[in-house]
Amino acid sequence: MDTALELAGPLTHDELRRLDAYWRAANYLTVGQIYLLDNPLLREPLRPEHVKPRLLGHWGTSPGLNLIYVHLNRAIVARDLNMIYVAGPGHGGPAVVANTWLEGTYSELYPSVGRDEDGMRRLFRQFSFPGGIPSHVASEVPGSIHEGGELGYSLSHAYGAVMDDPDLVVACVIGDGEAETGPLAGSWLSNMFVDPARDGAVLPILHLNGFKIANPAVLDRIPTDDLLSMMRGYGYQPYLVEGDDPARVHQELAGTLDVALDAIAAIQARARGTAANQARARGHAGAEPSPDGHPGHRPRWPMIILRTPKGWSGPREADGHRVEGTFHAHQVPLAVSRGNPEHLARLEQWLRSYRPEELFDATGAPARDLDRLVPAGDRRMSANPVTNGGLLLRDLALPDFRAYAVTVARPGGPDASATGVLGNWLRDVIAANPDRFRLFGPDEVESNKLDAAFEVTDRAFVGRITPDDQDLAPGGRVLEVLSEHLCQGWLEGYLLTGRHGVFTSYEAFIHIVDSMVNQHLKWLKVTRNIPWRRPIASLNYLLSSHVWRQDHNGFSHQDPGFIDHVVNKKAEVVRVYLPPDANTLLSTMDHCLRSRHYVNVVVAGKQSGPSWLGITDAILHCQRGLGVWDWAGTRTGEEPDVVLACAGDVPTLETLAAAALLREHLPDLRVRVVNVVDLMRLQPDTEHPHGLPDAQFDAIFTRDRPVIFAYHGYPWLIHRLTYRRTNHANLHVRGYKEEGTTTTPFDMVMLNDLDRFHLVTDVIDRVPGLGGRAASVRQRMVDARVACRAHTREYGEDHPRITGWRWPAPA
Amino acid sequence: MDTALELAGPLTHDELRRLDAYWRAANYLTVGQIYLLDNPLLREPLRPEHVKPRLLGHWGTSPGLNLIYVHLNRAIVARDLNMIYVAGPGHGGPAVVANTWLEGTYSELYPSVGRDEDGMRRLFRQFSFPGGIPSHVASEVPGSIHEGGELGYSLSHAYGAVMDDPDLVVACVIGDGEAETGPLAGSWLSNMFVDPARDGAVLPILHLNGFKIANPAVLDRIPTDDLLSMMRGYGYQPYLVEGDDPARVHQELAGTLDVALDAIAAIQARARGTAANQARARGHAGAEPSPDGHPGHRPRWPMIILRTPKGWSGPREADGHRVEGTFHAHQVPLAVSRGNPEHLARLEQWLRSYRPEELFDATGAPARDLDRLVPAGDRRMSANPVTNGGLLLRDLALPDFRAYAVTVARPGGPDASATGVLGNWLRDVIAANPDRFRLFGPDEVESNKLDAAFEVTDRAFVGRITPDDQDLAPGGRVLEVLSEHLCQGWLEGYLLTGRHGVFTSYEAFIHIVDSMVNQHLKWLKVTRNIPWRRPIASLNYLLSSHVWRQDHNGFSHQDPGFIDHVVNKKAEVVRVYLPPDANTLLSTMDHCLRSRHYVNVVVAGKQSGPSWLGITDAILHCQRGLGVWDWAGTRTGEEPDVVLACAGDVPTLETLAAAALLREHLPDLRVRVVNVVDLMRLQPDTEHPHGLPDAQFDAIFTRDRPVIFAYHGYPWLIHRLTYRRTNHANLHVRGYKEEGTTTTPFDMVMLNDLDRFHLVTDVIDRVPGLGGRAASVRQRMVDARVACRAHTREYGEDHPRITGWRWPAPA
Repeated sequence: MDTALELAGPLTHDELRRLDAYWRAANYLTVGQIYLLDNPLLREPLRPEHVKPRLLGHWGTSPGLNLIYVHLNRAIVARDLNMIYVAGPGHGGPAVVANTWLEGTYSELYPSVGRDEDGMRRLFRQFSFPGGIPSHVASEVPGSIHEGGELGYSLSHAYGAVMDDPDLVVACVIGDGEAETGPLAGSWLSNMFVDPARDGAVLPILHLNGFKIANPAVLDRIPTDDLLSMMRGYGYQPYLVEGDDPARVHQELAGTLDVALDAIAAIQARARGTAANQARARGHAGAEPSPDGHPGHRPRWPMIILRTPKGWSGPREADGHRVEGTFHAHQVPLAVSRGNPEHLARLEQWLRSYRPEELFDATGAPARDLDRLVPAGDRRMSANPVTNGGLLLRDLALPDFRAYAVTVARPGGPDASATGVLGNWLRDVIAANPDRFRLFGPDEVESNKLDAAFEVTDRAFVGRITPDDQDLAPGGRVLEVLSEHLCQGWLEGYLLTGRHGVFTSYEAFIHIVDSMVNQHLKWLKVTRNIPWRRPIASLNYLLSSHVWRQDHNGFSHQDPGFIDHVVNKKAEVVRVYLPPDANTLLSTMDHCLRSRHYVNVVVAGKQSGPSWLGITDAILHCQRGLGVWDWAGTRTGEEPDVVLACAGDVPTLETLAAAALLREHLPDLRVRVVNVVDLMRLQPDTEHPHGLPDAQFDAIFTRDRPVIFAYHGYPWLIHRLTYRRTNHANLHVRGYKEEGTTTTPFDMVMLNDLDRFHLVTDVIDRVPGLGGRAASVRQRMVDARVACRAHTREYGEDHPRITGWRWPAPA
Repeated sequence: MDTALELAGPLTHDELRRLDAYWRAANYLTVGQIYLLDNPLLREPLRPEHVKPRLLGHWGTSPGLNLIYVHLNRAIVARDLNMIYVAGPGHGGPAVVANTWLEGTYSELYPSVGRDEDGMRRLFRQFSFPGGIPSHVASEVPGSIHEGGELGYSLSHAYGAVMDDPDLVVACVIGDGEAETGPLAGSWLSNMFVDPARDGAVLPILHLNGFKIANPAVLDRIPTDDLLSMMRGYGYQPYLVEGDDPARVHQELAGTLDVALDAIAAIQARARGTAANQARARGHAGAEPSPDGHPGHRPRWPMIILRTPKGWSGPREADGHRVEGTFHAHQVPLAVSRGNPEHLARLEQWLRSYRPEELFDATGAPARDLDRLVPAGDRRMSANPVTNGGLLLRDLALPDFRAYAVTVARPGGPDASATGVLGNWLRDVIAANPDRFRLFGPDEVESNKLDAAFEVTDRAFVGRITPDDQDLAPGGRVLEVLSEHLCQGWLEGYLLTGRHGVFTSYEAFIHIVDSMVNQHLKWLKVTRNIPWRRPIASLNYLLSSHVWRQDHNGFSHQDPGFIDHVVNKKAEVVRVYLPPDANTLLSTMDHCLRSRHYVNVVVAGKQSGPSWLGITDAILHCQRGLGVWDWAGTRTGEEPDVVLACAGDVPTLETLAAAALLREHLPDLRVRVVNVVDLMRLQPDTEHPHGLPDAQFDAIFTRDRPVIFAYHGYPWLIHRLTYRRTNHANLHVRGYKEEGTTTTPFDMVMLNDLDRFHLVTDVIDRVPGLGGRAASVRQRMVDARVACRAHTREYGEDHPRITGWRWPAPA
């Protein structure tokens, strides 16, 4: 490298030397973590017992992650930046851990892993070692808001993190493997939603090292001109840095980072000038080009393409094939069998190539020269409080939801849209929290009847805005894009950095983010047990346009299985609510927005429907999670002949209609109606913190009477939650059994045997000794189904007997 | 339009007139489906009873779909093309249905909906009407391989369809809403995997109509230059057609289609020339530019950007706001209340604007002039047999898998990698079926030990190939890209057009395609009951790198819940297999590749492990789906004291080790070992076609003895499948309970209480009357766990007692 030290700036000879030493130190610590159990400073020749028996980890991406990290450090120090690091190639765990140790943060948070020789030994040993730390940039790693094992979400996390944090710059490293995923490809246009005046900046760094596990990376094999063209097409100004000579790459990367950070500063300065703010406040940018050359508001943000060899600085070859710069460098590039002296020698040679004696002092601490590159205190990316969002989290200012309630003079009236009522409250939540609450959704906020939000805010949009558009402006608090992946990724980034939000979507298509919510739930589960990680706001799903009301869409839009998906995860981080009407939805959402560190799944209807409970009763009912609705059953207090249970707005309506039919036709039958809002109450208290103790469960559901349970989703979930309960053998569940099409709402419940008439026949079939009258009632129910279906097929709408049905006034 | 008729070609005056008439006819039929119950030809003024009471459907995208359809028809007729149509905006169902009716296909397949006035009445009435047809381009629609309700997969379906079908051209319409999704954004680079010599061509048509439900479309609001740049970046040659004057757009679209189809023909001719084929056969293209200007092989395929108004030709305004060209045109643009004469008049005016009297003859059939634009017979996109893949499906030539089996002299030996053994058979399946079988995976075919495939084929890749690459070539039969969405979309497209394939992936990350498999399962379920749709090959998942063996990765890579996800769908289309060793995996995969119209989920390990069954026993065991392993239990035929059941390779190993421990330490205990391969056997036969009748279930699992069930996945799934069984109350399931990190294999099972020692304590805790000896055995088991954990934490690898354990030789 010496000759290249003479290269022209921006780095001075000394800066270059120190940057390169820091990079070598991080690389050394990376290799050490993968390979070494002991002898961390190579004070003696490597012996077999110094090497781990199982070699695990990912080397290939690590030198690139290390290179970027130290260059960002230089920029942070030079510019006093508020910056964090998102490592898309999250399997490069040892690289990021190495940097946090060099910065001292690791030892501050994990004092047993000190910044000395003994600490380095522990650092090496613990990596991917039983009882130690995971191999990825997991939540245990200081400064991480992104694990990245699954790949695809780094850029959306980065964009979510900068929302409402104007000073923050997120350097987002995107691996060329990750860049092949759909979710990542769909994230580039996040720049259409970020307001340069009110939000921070993302600096995407696409790292091309050319290879995945066994394949080349696609973006490395398209012509470079095409790649630059693609990035310009996505609205960025791309800068290319490439090479395999460290000195040259150091100089080019440093220079390019300076250019990119200058560009970000200039964009922000322009956007934050008075005139620009006024234009933004007007919200209609028209087609006038901005100073950055874009029509509308969107600046041409910089991004960097960095092309360096995979496993750079590692072994050139092994086993007769090239390693550095090929896919062979992906995981453990050099197989080291402890008994093989040649293996040990090669490993030692590799480690010594970083000249550890120059990098660490006699105690094993980083040399003082390196320390000068470490930003101070919270400016360290590993110590930035933004990455431990719970530290910064402030409670939402929540207006009293009772003031938004529907007045319910008697059960069943008036009709109201549950989400519509909620929308009024959410509007005021948005208004009261202009810096820390956002609403996310794939173009459904309005169709889900939450449009009251637009009385106080807009949809965020920095593209061209036309006179026919409604409620669009940069800086809007509602984020709408037809990508559930983006909504989820943004919201996760926003929550992990200490803010609050709600994701509203079609129930069926929330499955699109199944895998993302898995990862988020795993993060929540692990961080509950990391003392320095503070709880963050819950991730709240409001699923409307649910399975029973797909009037415009039909079978492809019907799937209530997201609930099943989340309840597979750790009980301590999962909550599921099925409020049956507007007031219970208000109470539920208030609760969810106050909660911490959960995933809350709330399923609620948007269509107008009956209101069952006044707000006081609704609050009480939601606090209990489930309860007997005395007013809907017969003879309070007596042991019933049958329990009608329900969860979900449509099943509740059908259950109450069934209860009314039973009251009319079989007045002597003792019926108890139970409504369930908090689904986890059904589980034993040994399985879920919300679980109802068996005695209480038995008191409500009886020990031996038939229970006809009308459930919103797949019926077997209720069995899975209750199979340990005393009365489980008498539980009969109706729900969605994957039958549907584009049809009327009542035809939908009939297709799945969840309708009131069928519930009545279920009762008759299961309560013994009802006698001849019941048989004739049963036939009437069957006839009623036939009549309803015939009416629907003839007229294309539900029978007036159904649409006109109301809960009977008290006798 | 008259003045514009004078525009210069390529269309003659007469062609233009006919094309426009056809477009008007399709638009008329679209509006009719959304609005009309009767009076389809407007033979009398609209009366209230002619209009549907519930107005459902999506108008906004439909005129664009219709425009493209008729222009493609012109090209098909002119060039005798083998072409199909993928409607990404699948909610434009009435548009595609209208075209299939105009072509006659609809009436051929649904004779009650004739090509006459009465048929038109039925056509209108049935749309989105109870008992009628869904509102989307569902599987009921002739010519469809893509429903498109969920959005995101049109382009991957299109690319999958052209693989191995060199003559086929798929015109793939991508909505500007869909284009925002991650999966769609990630699909553009499919052109890196399609061989112009051996595969057909996709013509992407990005349709910008500017709006979604309530928002502008992002791609419509970036500068046009950026959009063109993006498409060039993705390797395409984009052609822009835009306007709102029909005549001008007709001319421009016709001309552009001619250019694009000429370009496709030229690319194919070049690629299929002898010299090009020889270069391809060599497989290493180096960096030489091709005649199309790309280094490597990838031609610059054409694509079209069509920008026309949303709801074009529909109402200009309504309720005081603009409709055509705005988001208000998305669904039903004109609210028509049947009792409102003004509404009726506006609707009639709109319908009459298409001049139906010119478009349909006295009988209601399409005018003869229109018929001349309809391609003949199978050339009609709605009748192309490619879109009814079962018609074209040919069985795979399957080598006898028994020849690939591991020889098992006694249970437990020899060790083998199940997927490694399978790989040899799959290699020969690939070789024997060079035109109809492909392997798909996200860069894991090799790491999943299926690399024998590369003895006979390569990974498909048409980018730059370097000397360090392995097994890459255009035309390879293995498709690897780091996008589960692409793998799934390609495979679905490939299967739906009559071919076969396997998708191999990480178990955890297959959740990425949860929502896609939902849609595919819904397609399979519905098409079972469509008489003219023929069964297609099953979609086979081979999930390796499963939850128990994430040595390099850890917690983020651990999730066995995909099984739970698929079993929520209709039993008749879902199969789940957990073969415990190499020979059972061979038998299972042979069965799966012969099966039709299912989704088969197969979970199998890749690491070397014991072989339990010889091939004959393996076949028998797989045929039964589950069975008692007499050799592993005690005293055949006797009623056992306890049943040890297991499903999955790791649980089977632990169960057998537990059985051996019990035999050693509690020799008087009567133990039965049951292994489950076919998970659906656990369900009652009333719930699943594979379900075991209760009597048989009871005979195997007993009616009253404790059953300790070691299961691969989340334990509650076993309860959900068995809660109706006699002995369910005595069933105790161990499985993955969401505990894990980067650690050793045995530490993983210990973390989840699935290890052999814990299974023994489970037995001791649940079998009554075992006495004092059992208590001391129990303590030994607890001690063994402690010792194993301590060893692992000390040495970083599993205790030799574990790694060295083998099933004991017969005494």
